[in-house]
Amino acid sequence: MAVRTRAEYIESLRQQHPQQVYLNGKKVESVLDEPGFKKGIESIALAFDICHDPKYQELATLDSPLIGERISRWNHLNQSLEDALLRNQLMRTMGDYLVPCCYRCMTAAEAMAAWIISYDIDKKYGTSYHQRVVKIVKEVQKNDLVIGASLVDPKGDRSLPPSKQPDPDLFLHIVERRKDGIIVKGARAHDTAAPYTNLLCVMPMSRPLRENEKDYAVAFFTPVDTEGITYVCRAAPGPHEDSDIEHPFSSRYGGQAHAYTIYDNVFIPWERVFMCGEYEFVGQLMNLHGALDMVDVCSCHAAGMDLAAGALALVADCNGTAKAPHIREYLINVISNAEITYSCAIASAVRGYRHESGVWSPNPLPGEVGKVFSASHLGQNRYYMQEAAGGSARTMPQEADLKNPVTGELLYKYLKGRADLPAEHRIRALKLIQDLTASDFAGWHHAMCICEGGAPGGLRLGILGGYDLDKSKTKAKRAARIAE
Amino acid sequence: MAVRTRAEYIESLRQQHPQQVYLNGKKVESVLDEPGFKKGIESIALAFDICHDPKYQELATLDSPLIGERISRWNHLNQSLEDALLRNQLMRTMGDYLVPCCYRCMTAAEAMAAWIISYDIDKKYGTSYHQRVVKIVKEVQKNDLVIGASLVDPKGDRSLPPSKQPDPDLFLHIVERRKDGIIVKGARAHDTAAPYTNLLCVMPMSRPLRENEKDYAVAFFTPVDTEGITYVCRAAPGPHEDSDIEHPFSSRYGGQAHAYTIYDNVFIPWERVFMCGEYEFVGQLMNLHGALDMVDVCSCHAAGMDLAAGALALVADCNGTAKAPHIREYLINVISNAEITYSCAIASAVRGYRHESGVWSPNPLPGEVGKVFSASHLGQNRYYMQEAAGGSARTMPQEADLKNPVTGELLYKYLKGRADLPAEHRIRALKLIQDLTASDFAGWHHAMCICEGGAPGGLRLGILGGYDLDKSKTKAKRAARIAE
Amino acid sequence: MAVRTRAEYIESLRQQHPQQVYLNGKKVESVLDEPGFKKGIESIALAFDICHDPKYQELATLDSPLIGERISRWNHLNQSLEDALLRNQLMRTMGDYLVPCCYRCMTAAEAMAAWIISYDIDKKYGTSYHQRVVKIVKEVQKNDLVIGASLVDPKGDRSLPPSKQPDPDLFLHIVERRKDGIIVKGARAHDTAAPYTNLLCVMPMSRPLRENEKDYAVAFFTPVDTEGITYVCRAAPGPHEDSDIEHPFSSRYGGQAHAYTIYDNVFIPWERVFMCGEYEFVGQLMNLHGALDMVDVCSCHAAGMDLAAGALALVADCNGTAKAPHIREYLINVISNAEITYSCAIASAVRGYRHESGVWSPNPLPGEVGKVFSASHLGQNRYYMQEAAGGSARTMPQEADLKNPVTGELLYKYLKGRADLPAEHRIRALKLIQDLTASDFAGWHHAMCICEGGAPGGLRLGILGGYDLDKSKTKAKRAARIAE
Amino acid sequence: MAVRTRAEYIESLRQQHPQQVYLNGKKVESVLDEPGFKKGIESIALAFDICHDPKYQELATLDSPLIGERISRWNHLNQSLEDALLRNQLMRTMGDYLVPCCYRCMTAAEAMAAWIISYDIDKKYGTSYHQRVVKIVKEVQKNDLVIGASLVDPKGDRSLPPSKQPDPDLFLHIVERRKDGIIVKGARAHDTAAPYTNLLCVMPMSRPLRENEKDYAVAFFTPVDTEGITYVCRAAPGPHEDSDIEHPFSSRYGGQAHAYTIYDNVFIPWERVFMCGEYEFVGQLMNLHGALDMVDVCSCHAAGMDLAAGALALVADCNGTAKAPHIREYLINVISNAEITYSCAIASAVRGYRHESGVWSPNPLPGEVGKVFSASHLGQNRYYMQEAAGGSARTMPQEADLKNPVTGELLYKYLKGRADLPAEHRIRALKLIQDLTASDFAGWHHAMCICEGGAPGGLRLGILGGYDLDKSKTKAKRAARIAE
Repeated sequence: MAVRTRAEYIESLRQQHPQQVYLNGKKVESVLDEPGFKKGIESIALAFDICHDPKYQELATLDSPLIGERISRWNHLNQSLEDALLRNQLMRTMGDYLVPCCYRCMTAAEAMAAWIISYDIDKKYGTSYHQRVVKIVKEVQKNDLVIGASLVDPKGDRSLPPSKQPDPDLFLHIVERRKDGIIVKGARAHDTAAPYTNLLCVMPMSRPLRENEKDYAVAFFTPVDTEGITYVCRAAPGPHEDSDIEHPFSSRYGGQAHAYTIYDNVFIPWERVFMCGEYEFVGQLMNLHGALDMVDVCSCHAAGMDLAAGALALVADCNGTAKAPHIREYLINVISNAEITYSCAIASAVRGYRHESGVWSPNPLPGEVGKVFSASHLGQNRYYMQEAAGGSARTMPQEADLKNPVTGELLYKYLKGRADLPAEHRIRALKLIQDLTASDFAGWHHAMCICEGGAPGGLRLGILGGYDLDKSKTKAKRAARIAE
Repeated sequence: MAVRTRAEYIESLRQQHPQQVYLNGKKVESVLDEPGFKKGIESIALAFDICHDPKYQELATLDSPLIGERISRWNHLNQSLEDALLRNQLMRTMGDYLVPCCYRCMTAAEAMAAWIISYDIDKKYGTSYHQRVVKIVKEVQKNDLVIGASLVDPKGDRSLPPSKQPDPDLFLHIVERRKDGIIVKGARAHDTAAPYTNLLCVMPMSRPLRENEKDYAVAFFTPVDTEGITYVCRAAPGPHEDSDIEHPFSSRYGGQAHAYTIYDNVFIPWERVFMCGEYEFVGQLMNLHGALDMVDVCSCHAAGMDLAAGALALVADCNGTAKAPHIREYLINVISNAEITYSCAIASAVRGYRHESGVWSPNPLPGEVGKVFSASHLGQNRYYMQEAAGGSARTMPQEADLKNPVTGELLYKYLKGRADLPAEHRIRALKLIQDLTASDFAGWHHAMCICEGGAPGGLRLGILGGYDLDKSKTKAKRAARIAE
Repeated sequence: MAVRTRAEYIESLRQQHPQQVYLNGKKVESVLDEPGFKKGIESIALAFDICHDPKYQELATLDSPLIGERISRWNHLNQSLEDALLRNQLMRTMGDYLVPCCYRCMTAAEAMAAWIISYDIDKKYGTSYHQRVVKIVKEVQKNDLVIGASLVDPKGDRSLPPSKQPDPDLFLHIVERRKDGIIVKGARAHDTAAPYTNLLCVMPMSRPLRENEKDYAVAFFTPVDTEGITYVCRAAPGPHEDSDIEHPFSSRYGGQAHAYTIYDNVFIPWERVFMCGEYEFVGQLMNLHGALDMVDVCSCHAAGMDLAAGALALVADCNGTAKAPHIREYLINVISNAEITYSCAIASAVRGYRHESGVWSPNPLPGEVGKVFSASHLGQNRYYMQEAAGGSARTMPQEADLKNPVTGELLYKYLKGRADLPAEHRIRALKLIQDLTASDFAGWHHAMCICEGGAPGGLRLGILGGYDLDKSKTKAKRAARIAE
Repeated sequence: MAVRTRAEYIESLRQQHPQQVYLNGKKVESVLDEPGFKKGIESIALAFDICHDPKYQELATLDSPLIGERISRWNHLNQSLEDALLRNQLMRTMGDYLVPCCYRCMTAAEAMAAWIISYDIDKKYGTSYHQRVVKIVKEVQKNDLVIGASLVDPKGDRSLPPSKQPDPDLFLHIVERRKDGIIVKGARAHDTAAPYTNLLCVMPMSRPLRENEKDYAVAFFTPVDTEGITYVCRAAPGPHEDSDIEHPFSSRYGGQAHAYTIYDNVFIPWERVFMCGEYEFVGQLMNLHGALDMVDVCSCHAAGMDLAAGALALVADCNGTAKAPHIREYLINVISNAEITYSCAIASAVRGYRHESGVWSPNPLPGEVGKVFSASHLGQNRYYMQEAAGGSARTMPQEADLKNPVTGELLYKYLKGRADLPAEHRIRALKLIQDLTASDFAGWHHAMCICEGGAPGGLRLGILGGYDLDKSKTKAKRAARIAE
C-alpha cells in the first residue's frame, strides 16, 4: 500500500539534505531538528495519520486508477465530480484533526495543474511534457510524496512586467538552455512548508506573459535538496515549546513555516521540465491553478469556521451564556459563513468539467467568490468569538501565574464560573479563544486566510472576468424592451 | 407528449369555474379575463414556452420514469443528484425568459414533499396515502398541471398554538370525518397564483403540532374550483395595462397575484387526502418542504441577481460610466451575491440523499443559509443599481411626457447621453432600473424575496438546529485540550 | 411677524403664474389645483404648521439678526455652532410631523451658499454680488419664501466637460450679456418641488469648470414664473386621492414632485445674478453647498429611521413578537443606523467654522460619511421592517376588499392577531410597512435617499479628498520608524 | 504649574511600594524595572510629553477652575460642551504621538463619575461624600496623578447576582464597617496599568444591585500600594526588548499590562470612601461611567483608525499600488469608519447636559452606538490593511535574517519594490502592517477594542434602553392613522 505513515514521512525528511536553509538569522543544520519547523512537520504528519485512522480511511484513501494501488486521497487526481466532492469532504473532515494547516492540499492541486497544462501544450506543440508529468505523478503516488508549491515571484515594482524590471531576477527565469536541461535563476516568496516537503513544483503564477518574456515561462519539479537552492525561512507562528494552557492549540500544531526560496543558477534536467517558453499558456495555467486551489481553500476555511463555531459555543457554555440571544445570533452567523464558504467549494466542483486529459477541472468563479467571502468574514467571526469570551480571553494572567501556588490559588478562586464546571474548563476555553483570535498564531492565520491563493483584489477581477455579463445584459435589454 | 403549450394552459383555466373569487373589492366573473390576473397568467405561460423552445427543450423536458412519456421538468420528481442539479439549472436558466416569477417551481416541490411524507406515514401506520399521491402525481404529469401551494395559516396570536387560539379557525382544521372524506375549515394566507393554477396542494406548514392538535394535521390535493373555497385576491404588482417605456418589465409580466384562500367547510374525498391526524409528521414535513423550496428559491434569486447585474451594466453603458472603478466594484458585488446564492442551492442538492421512496431529498442547511443571505443582500444590489443610474431613474418625467410632442422634443434633447447611443436606450435603461428597484413591482419583489419560503428569523433557527454544533464543540475541546 | 401660515404659503402659489408647466403628458393650468402636486404642497405646508405649533415654536422660529423680526428657522442663516445644532434638531424634530419630505431645508442651504460665495467673489474681484444676495435673503426672510434649488445639469456624456459636449446646452450657460442682465439657456434635471416654490436659486453644481467654460459659471435667483421657463414634471409618488388603509401615509403626504426645468433664453436682470463668469469658484461652491446640504440630509435621514424604528416596533407589537430576540436585534440596528447618521450631522456642524461673512460653514467630511452610510443602510432597515411584518405586508388583500361586506367579514376574522388589539391595528401596521418599504412611495424614497445631494460614488471621492491622509501617513511612518 | 514631566511621573512610581505584584509566575520586586511593564509606562509617559510639547500645549493643558493652576487636560473635569469637545480633540490628537494606549483617559473619567455620583448621593441622604471627592480631585490635579480604574468583578456564574453566588467574594464587598473606615474583600479583573498608576478608583460597575446587596455598593479611592492588595499581572503585548524592524511599533510602546487585583481584607479610611451601601445608585453610576468612557473610547478608536489609514496608504505607496481602485475604496472605508466613530464621540458630548454639580455629562446613546460600530468594524480595517500589504506582511523572513549578511543580501535584492524607494521602506511598511494586524500586540488591541468599556452585547441593550422608542411608535401610529 502506497500510503505512508507519519513516521515514514518524517524519515523521508531525514534522508533529504538541503544545503542552504536559514531561519531567524541562523543556518539550519537539520530541518528535522529545528524547533521552528517542528509544528509544521507535526501538522503535515496529522494528514498522514488520518489515512490510517479506521474512522476516516474510507474517505482518505482510494485505489489509484493510475498505479493500481491504494493511495492517499491527498495524492489523487480527481477523475470525476464524485472525486471532486469527496476531496471537498476530506478537506472539511480534516478539521476533526486539525485546521489549519496540514498543507497536504497542495500536492494534488499542483499535480492536476501540471497534468492538464502539459497535456494542452503537447497538443499544440507536439512536445512531450505530459509523459514526464505522468511519470512524476506516479512516483508521487507510489512514494506518497509531499509536493511543495513554489509559485509567487517577488515581482519588484508591481506596475512593471518581468521584462521591464530593472533587476531581471525579480521574476524567476531561464538563464541557459542546455542539452541535458535548463539553468534557472530567481526567487519565490512565501513558499509554505518548503524545506520539509519532498518535491518542489515550480510554476509561473505571477502574471500573464508576453512573447518577449518566454524565458519567464518555465515550470518544473525538483527535489527539495537540489543544489543551488537557498531557503530563508520564517518559523511557524506561536511558541516553539509546548504551552499547555496559554497556547493549547498553537503550541502543538496549526501553523506552517514559510520560505523565501532563492534559485541561484539551479540546473533542472529535461525530464522534470513541463513548460519551457510557451508563454501564452501562463494565463491559462494561472486560472486553472486558481480554480483548483480555491476549492481546497474554501473547504479548509469552512473547517476553520467550524472550529470557530465550536470555540464560541464552548466559551459561552463555560460563561453560562449559551442561551443568550446575542450568542445564538453570533453562532448562526458563524455557521452561515461556514456553510456559504463550503457551498462555494461544492459549486466550484459541480460546475467543472472533465478535461480531455482525464482530470476534473473545477469552475473558478464560485471558488473565487467563496474565497473572497470567507477572507472578508473572518474578522466578523473573530469579533463574535471575542465578544462571547469577554476581555478575559486576553487580559487573564498567564500559565505561569496559574501554576504559581500563591497566585494560582487566588486565580482559580476568582476564575470560577458555572458551579457545575471546573474553573479549568473556563480558563482553557478562554485561552483557546485567545489562541484563535488574539495571538501570534491568530495573526498568521488571518494573513493566510486573506492572501493565500491570491489576494481578494485580484480574485475580484477574476470574478468579473469569469461571469457572463453579456448574457445578463441581454436579459436586461429584453426586460427594458431595447431591441438588440 | 405530456408537455402543454401556453395555449393549452390558458384553455385549462377557461375550463375551471371557481365560484368565489374576489379582487380589489369586486367579485371576479372570469379569472381569465380579469386584468389583475393577466400578468401572472402570462408569467406562468412563459414557463410553458421554454419547454417548447428548441434552445431549452433538452433542459426543460425529459422522459418521465413514472409515466413513460416526455414531460416538463417542472413536473418531474428528482430521482438523483443529477436531476436535482438540472433542476437548479432550469431555475436559473428560466431567467433568460423571465425572473420573477413563473411560479412553476412549486408543482414538483409540493409533489415531492407529498410523495415522501405519505411514504413515511404509510410505513409507520400502514395507511395508503402514498398510492393516492402516486396517482395524483401521474395525473399532474400526464396533464401538465400547475399545482398551487396553499400552506400558511393566518396564525392569529403568534405566541399561541392552534389549540389555544380564541378562534379555532385561525389554523385550518378538520371539522368532520366522514365515510367518503373529510370536511375542513380555515384559511390560508398569501396563496400565490392560486385562482389560475389547476390543483391546490394543502399542507400544514405553520408550526409543529401536539397530540391534542390532530385535527390540524391534514394534507390533501383539491381542484381549484372546489365548492366552498373563496379566494380574496390581491392583483399582481405594477400596472395592468401595457406601459411600454415607464414600466417596460412590470407592465408585461413579472409578478403574481396572491389570495387569502378561505375554506368554508370544504369537502375533500379520501382519495385526495394524504395526511389526516398524524400530527407528529408535521415538523418533518415542514423541514422537508423547506429544503425543497429553498433550493428553488435560491436558484431563482440567483437568476434575479443576474438581471440586476445586467441592468446595472446596461445603465452604466448608457451613462458612459462602465469603466468607472465604483461601477466595477458594484458589479463584482452583485455577481458575488448571485454566485453565493446559487452555490447554496447547488450544495443543498449535493448534500442531499435519495429517500427510500425514490425521491432525492436535499439538505436544508445550505439552502436556508442561501435564502437568508440573498434576502438580506437584495437591498445592497438595489443600492448599487440606483447609484449607477442616478436620481433620474426616479425623477425623470413619464412616458406621456416623452410622447407629448412639446415636452418630448425637449426631453429627448436633454436626456441624450453618449453620442453613439440613442437617447431612447438611456431612457429605457433608466426606466428599467426604476421598474426593478423603485416601483410597485419592486416593492412586491422585495417583500417576496424576504418572506417567501419562510422569513429569515425562522430560517435562522433552522440553521442553528441543522448544524452539528456538538461536533464542532468537540473539535474546540480537543484544541483547548479539555478532556471530554 | 414674518412667519407665514400654511394658508399664506398656499395663497402665494395662487399669485404665481408659471406659463409652461407639464405633468404626465399634459399642460397644467393651475399648479395649485393639480392633483399630482397636492401632496407635495401639503408636505411643505406642514413645515409652516410647525412654526405655529406652540410645542415647537421655540425651536422653529427665532429673531432674525438680519431683519430684526421673528422668522422661521427654515429661513435663518446659521451664525454660530449653536444655530447649526438647533437646525439639526429642527430637521430631526420635523419627523414628529412628517418625514420625508417637507423640502424646507433647501431655502437656507441655498441662501447660505449664495451668501458665502458672493462674499468671496466680491473679495477677489471687487464685484457687488454680495449686496444683491443680502437683499434677496432679507426679502426671503420678510416674506417667508420657499426657495427651490435648480442645480443639476443633464450632463450628456459624463466623460466630457461642458465645452466638449456636442450640444452646448447640456450644461446651462450664458448666451448673451446685456446691459440690464443676462440671457441663459439650458436645463436642470430633477428640480424638486420647483413649480410650487416661490423663488428658484440656480447655481452651477455639476462639475468644476475651466477657463474656457466661463459661460457656464453662472448663478442667480429668479421667480418661479419667470418667462421662458418650462417645467416638465413628475408627480409625487403614491396615489393622488386619499387611500385611508392601503396607503395611510403616502396618500396624504410624504413625497414631492420633480421637474426637468428648461431655461429657453431666459432673461435675468443683474440684481438677481451673483456669479457670472468666475469659473474658478465653482469647485468651492460645490463643496460648500455639499457641506450645507449633507448636514440637513443626515438629520432628515435620521428622522426617517426614527419612523422606521417606530413602524418596526408597532408591527411587532401587533404580531405579538415584540419580545422576540431577532426583533430586538433589528430594532437596535435601526436605532444605531439612525444615531450614527445623526451623529455625523452633528459632527459636521461642530467641526465647522464661522466664515468671514458671518455664516457658520460646516465641515463636509462627516456629513458625506453620514450620507453614504445612511444611503447604504436604508436597504437594511427595510429588510428588518419587512421581516418583522412578514409577507402579509404585501400579499394582504386591499382596502376595497376589507370594505366589501362579504370579503371584509372574512378578512377581519382571519387577520385578527393579539386578542387585546383590534384587527384594524394589525392591518394598519402592516399597510404602513407596505407603504414605507414596498410601494411606489417607498421606491421614490429609496432613490432619493441614495441620490439626493450627490450620489455616494461622488461623495466617496470627497471623503478621500477631505481627509488629511498625509498626516496619517506621517503617523504610520513614525510607527514604522521610517525617517521622513 | 501642576503639569508633571515624564520624569516626574516615573519618579513617582519609584516612590510607590506595592508589596504584592506578580507577573508571569514571579513576584515583581520593582515595578519600574520590570521589563513587562516598561512599554506601558513609556506609553503613559508620552501622555505627559504631549503636555510639554509647544505644538500641543494649548490643547493639552488649561487653567483649572478648581485649583487655579495650569493643569493637564487629562485631569480636567469638563465644565461645558466646549470642554467636552476639546477633550475629544485631545484624545484623537494624542494619536500624533501614540495610539493605543496612553491610558490617561481614565483619570478624568473616574473623577467625573465620582464627582457626580457623590453629589447625587449626598443630595438624597445628606452624606458628605462629595467633599471627599472634591478634595481628592484637587489632590489629583495638584500632583498630576494617574488614576487607575478598578471596576470589573470576576462575576462567577453570570446568571446569578452577587448575593446568590456560592462564593460571596466573586463580587467585591464590604466585610466590616469600622469607626475609622471599612474593610473590603474581593477582586477586580483586567485592571489596566494598575501597578504603575498612582491612585486606584474602585467602583461597582458589574451590575445593578438589590436592597439585600448593600455590601456590594462600595466605591473609594486608594493608593496603589495599599496594604492587602495583590496584583497578578499580564505583561503588555509584544516583545519586551526592542525589535527595530520586526515589531517597530509594539516593541517600543502601544499596549498596557493588566492586573487581576485581589483585595484581601483591605482597609479604606472613610475620607477615601464615596459610596457605602447606597445600592440604588449603582445602575446610575454604571450609565454615567459608561457615557463618560464611551466618548473617550470612540475618540481613541478614531485615532487608531487614522493610523490604520496611514499604514494602508504607506504600504500601497511602497508596493506601487496607491492609485489602484481597490486601494482607494479601502482607504475611503477606513476613513469613513474613523469619521463615524469620532462623530459619535462628538454627538455624545453635544447631546449631554451640565449636571448640577457643575460637570458636563455626556449622552450615552451615541457613544454606545459608536463603540459598537467601531468594535465591529475593526476586522474590516484589518482586512483592508492586510490585503493592501499582501502575504509578505506575515510570511517575510525576520529581522535577524535581514541582518544576517548572507541572507540579508538576498532578501534586500528580492524585496526591492519601486525603484525610487529603498527596499527598507517597503520592508518597514510591511512589518508595520504585521505589527498592527497580525501580531501579539494586534491580538491584544483587537480584544481591547471589542471589550473595553463593556462588550457590545451589553452596550446594545443600553442602546435599546436609551432610545425613545415610544416617541417613534407614536410617529408610526400617526403615519398609519391609528388613533392613540
